[in-house]
Amino acid sequence: MSDTTTITVPAREGRAVELARGDRIRVIDPRGGQVADVFAFCAENLREYHSAEHTRVFVGRLFPHVGGRFVTNRRRPILTLAADDSPGVHDMLCAACDPSRYALLGAQGWHASCQENLQKAMAARGHDDIEIPQPINLFMNIPVGLDASIGFEPAPTKAGDSVTLRAELDVVVAVSACPQDLVPINSGSPTEIVLEVTRTPA
Amino acid sequence: MSDTTTITVPAREGRAVELARGDRIRVIDPRGGQVADVFAFCAENLREYHSAEHTRVFVGRLFPHVGGRFVTNRRRPILTLAADDSPGVHDMLCAACDPSRYALLGAQGWHASCQENLQKAMAARGHDDIEIPQPINLFMNIPVGLDASIGFEPAPTKAGDSVTLRAELDVVVAVSACPQDLVPINSGSPTEIVLEVTRTPA
Repeated sequence: MSDTTTITVPAREGRAVELARGDRIRVIDPRGGQVADVFAFCAENLREYHSAEHTRVFVGRLFPHVGGRFVTNRRRPILTLAADDSPGVHDMLCAACDPSRYALLGAQGWHASCQENLQKAMAARGHDDIEIPQPINLFMNIPVGLDASIGFEPAPTKAGDSVTLRAELDVVVAVSACPQDLVPINSGSPTEIVLEVTRTPA
Repeated sequence: MSDTTTITVPAREGRAVELARGDRIRVIDPRGGQVADVFAFCAENLREYHSAEHTRVFVGRLFPHVGGRFVTNRRRPILTLAADDSPGVHDMLCAACDPSRYALLGAQGWHASCQENLQKAMAARGHDDIEIPQPINLFMNIPVGLDASIGFEPAPTKAGDSVTLRAELDVVVAVSACPQDLVPINSGSPTEIVLEVTRTPA
């Protein structure tokens, strides 16, 4: 028997949730064309967290295959890519968008960002002073050219596509519905993300 | 008029040096086939430092071209790739080697690592509690395949090859002569790195 909770992450916002080892989180793009930035911290020590640069070395790829694991900055598995019901296009090269990104893109005044969404979502769970890890950018289409250039293309997801992650440690997972609307990664119009959390019996 | 200082980073060790804005550091592989891990911190605030994931977005590439800039986790230029007198093969995908990397590779007991070299070099300059940024891995040959796989190949440098970096802020630069001898990136035998620091008149 398992227990499933559904959480909507409103467009341009973030949410965080605690998962026990073995729990699963399905990250759903309900409308299509939307990027979800995912961060994972060890519940017992927030200075240990998912690290893209350690995961790339661990899996020998720019992004894990289905069944592959994401590891922390201490190289411990923290999440497994349990299922991918999407085109399988994801990014682990780019930093979260942040106030300086939008200033460089010419935004006037405040603009929502995945970094602030992470910070607010973690603060709402009582975690005020976190480091800012590089996210797992689900559905984000960053093609790498033969000349090592990187592009910024619309997410290829269609409505209802999802990725399922399994917790390998007790974790706090934060997800931001990316508010980027100045480059085309969210198909021009940021929309919401839905999380389905399935808890395994204790 | 300028003033040049030469610092030898012994094989498997690290050193840190303060640079003022405009100063240059030439990182030399005196024997060839050796990787140098480079880290750069803002002198006035060590929590601002070079960030690979921000630089990739800033330059639109996996690594800057000559003349291109490396930026911090606040997207401010911190270093410029002023000259590249090497085959031009460098990495900005892989975390620094660390004790957990060597444990996973089967090392018995303590093994020197770029992470500990960074921490010791910074501590020797009075900086005890730093975050561990992803390094700029000069001369490191990490080919990216069409299937997004990454490889670990010997550094293609010959004796005397170098890269010159210019400081765009007042910085503390740490360099580790990578001690990795369990994968072939250092051609099997880690050797020293030489730093030439050229200070501009105040």
